[in-house]
Amino acid sequence: MYNFSYQNPVNIVFGKNEIGKLSELLAKDSKIMITYGGGSIKKNGVHDQVVKALEGYSYIEFGGIEPNPKYETLMNAIALGKKEKVDFLLAVGGGSVIDGTKFIAAAIPMERDPWDIMLGNAAVEKAVPIGTILTLPATGSEMNSGAVISRISTKEKYAFMSPWVMPKFSILDPEVCYSLPKRQVANGIVDAFVHTIEQYLTYPVNAMVQDYFSESLLKTLIEIAPKVMKEQPEYDDCANFMWTATMALNGLIGCGVPQDWATHEIGHELTALHNIDHARTLAIVLPGVMNVMRNAKRDKLEQYAYRIWNISAGSSEERINQAIQRTEDFFESVGINTHLKDYDVNETTIGIITERFKERKTLLGERQDIGYGTVAEILRSRL
Amino acid sequence: MYNFSYQNPVNIVFGKNEIGKLSELLAKDSKIMITYGGGSIKKNGVHDQVVKALEGYSYIEFGGIEPNPKYETLMNAIALGKKEKVDFLLAVGGGSVIDGTKFIAAAIPMERDPWDIMLGNAAVEKAVPIGTILTLPATGSEMNSGAVISRISTKEKYAFMSPWVMPKFSILDPEVCYSLPKRQVANGIVDAFVHTIEQYLTYPVNAMVQDYFSESLLKTLIEIAPKVMKEQPEYDDCANFMWTATMALNGLIGCGVPQDWATHEIGHELTALHNIDHARTLAIVLPGVMNVMRNAKRDKLEQYAYRIWNISAGSSEERINQAIQRTEDFFESVGINTHLKDYDVNETTIGIITERFKERKTLLGERQDIGYGTVAEILRSRL
Repeated sequence: MYNFSYQNPVNIVFGKNEIGKLSELLAKDSKIMITYGGGSIKKNGVHDQVVKALEGYSYIEFGGIEPNPKYETLMNAIALGKKEKVDFLLAVGGGSVIDGTKFIAAAIPMERDPWDIMLGNAAVEKAVPIGTILTLPATGSEMNSGAVISRISTKEKYAFMSPWVMPKFSILDPEVCYSLPKRQVANGIVDAFVHTIEQYLTYPVNAMVQDYFSESLLKTLIEIAPKVMKEQPEYDDCANFMWTATMALNGLIGCGVPQDWATHEIGHELTALHNIDHARTLAIVLPGVMNVMRNAKRDKLEQYAYRIWNISAGSSEERINQAIQRTEDFFESVGINTHLKDYDVNETTIGIITERFKERKTLLGERQDIGYGTVAEILRSRL
Repeated sequence: MYNFSYQNPVNIVFGKNEIGKLSELLAKDSKIMITYGGGSIKKNGVHDQVVKALEGYSYIEFGGIEPNPKYETLMNAIALGKKEKVDFLLAVGGGSVIDGTKFIAAAIPMERDPWDIMLGNAAVEKAVPIGTILTLPATGSEMNSGAVISRISTKEKYAFMSPWVMPKFSILDPEVCYSLPKRQVANGIVDAFVHTIEQYLTYPVNAMVQDYFSESLLKTLIEIAPKVMKEQPEYDDCANFMWTATMALNGLIGCGVPQDWATHEIGHELTALHNIDHARTLAIVLPGVMNVMRNAKRDKLEQYAYRIWNISAGSSEERINQAIQRTEDFFESVGINTHLKDYDVNETTIGIITERFKERKTLLGERQDIGYGTVAEILRSRL
């Protein structure tokens, strides 16, 4: 096991009807900006609950943060926040709204162009404090320090991390799942699954708890997927889904182990170029990473095959092939296609992405040994 | 799953040679009191590492905090801390030193007798900040808000919890395990095992992640026990042991599930009356709780039998009996006796403990249905 530091001070308030606790979590004299997305919170009753809980508070609202939150949109929120001198940001939404709000939080106190944060040219040294009300289990952003932001003008998508933008609190009410479009539920399942895989499917360092915990999350997702995809899911299934997605990316399972993230970095390019849902890009790319990187990942692939899919018969290659197939089948079982052709993406895009990685000289993966050539190979295996 | 809140801001610094990071974690102008136990830290090199890391700092020392830390001893530390106006407490030791230091931290700012905290007559409203250097994996105190304190004069042993006494940081260097007496290693294994069981072996509320996580810790402990009991254990085994013990009682696996703690509450009486090591009292009592409460715990006992011990054949009673036997065997395998007679405890003590619970009118267990009569039955089953 590698050395590590771990600190996660986010106050998680979990369960049905917990949104009413907002007023216990916010100082009375706060000047709040509520941020949200496309307006689903106005249809599913969450906005009403928030407004009721904030009676007596001073707040403004900024809606319209889109999936894969855009720099261009967020700059408007930053201008509004500066003008109104807000001192607390309440993100009500899924990972995109929360990620976007983290960017707003870091940018409000800055003088220079906040895109410099994404380019690694500016450090986050303070931020407006954030609270979140999660409406979509998926990204784990409600309990971590990371955010992914896209820029339309340059077709770029980058991540940043800072302890400054960790939420002070996050309210997780599983009942928000009842009204979610199944497309978003499916995306959430795949997102949480691949987050776990990125921290698990590397090479063994004898970190037993981390491995068992990762496998716990994968097994839970496989078991609850058909249940939360039902028209009317049960509360407990929604609760298990929500807590799993949070645990999949709050830093815990990544303590002291190597991490991959190649699937994410390649997937981000597909979103940037073709606006494919983040989770769907992961479902496309992951089987390719497993397949092409099978030698480097052999020990963990075999462990994954056995402990997650109960595959014990056959040669190493056969077991790994089966595990990859089961993974693909799992994604397809929630209605997510796993090949590039399903999204009308062809060799041309692979060429563009390969060129981008070549230019950036980025090396991906837990051993930083995936160069642009291997990226091309991974993507071609997913045509 | 039940609703829950979870917040754990302790900064964990984990790994070999991490004690040197102390100076990055402490303000230069701190007035520190180092607290420790019987002096093993002066033999195993930890004290030297601490002194080296604190070069240039102002600090005093208070040693001699005993296992099952005593009010009488701690009052001396409190007097010293007040007199010297210390503003940071650095606990260097195992759970007893850390628990004792939490009591000191809460007591220094108080005017009244701090035993009132233990009796529930005084609330902790502030505390001197604490950091810890863990020298014995066992109690989880390094990452939680609880402490158990004994009082010699009254033969009492009580627990208190307060977010104010959560450590600001805890340094966990698995190499401290190399020089631990095997008796303490064995105690630590059993302690972490029973902490997990108290939050797991109750009744099902469909909390899948919490169940899988608890099972992860139990399986890890069973697998590493013979390895860390070796004369010269491997680093990774020590690391897995240390991280498991921390995770077993940092609040995470207890989120949203019923909790028992009857084994602990009964065990505390055995320590208070006979000074038996805490972990040993748990090893005595737990099989009795499993046995006597088998109807109330049937679903989870069957799950435990199957998922932890791979027991699937036989009637429910047979599977449960086997699981209890395997649990006892596991404790005995690390040299911990599991019957009262092994500690020269007889019916007389059972009478005294029963009388104590009768007087206090305490009801124990996840359903608060274990009265003094059932306590007597549990203990008699362990003669």
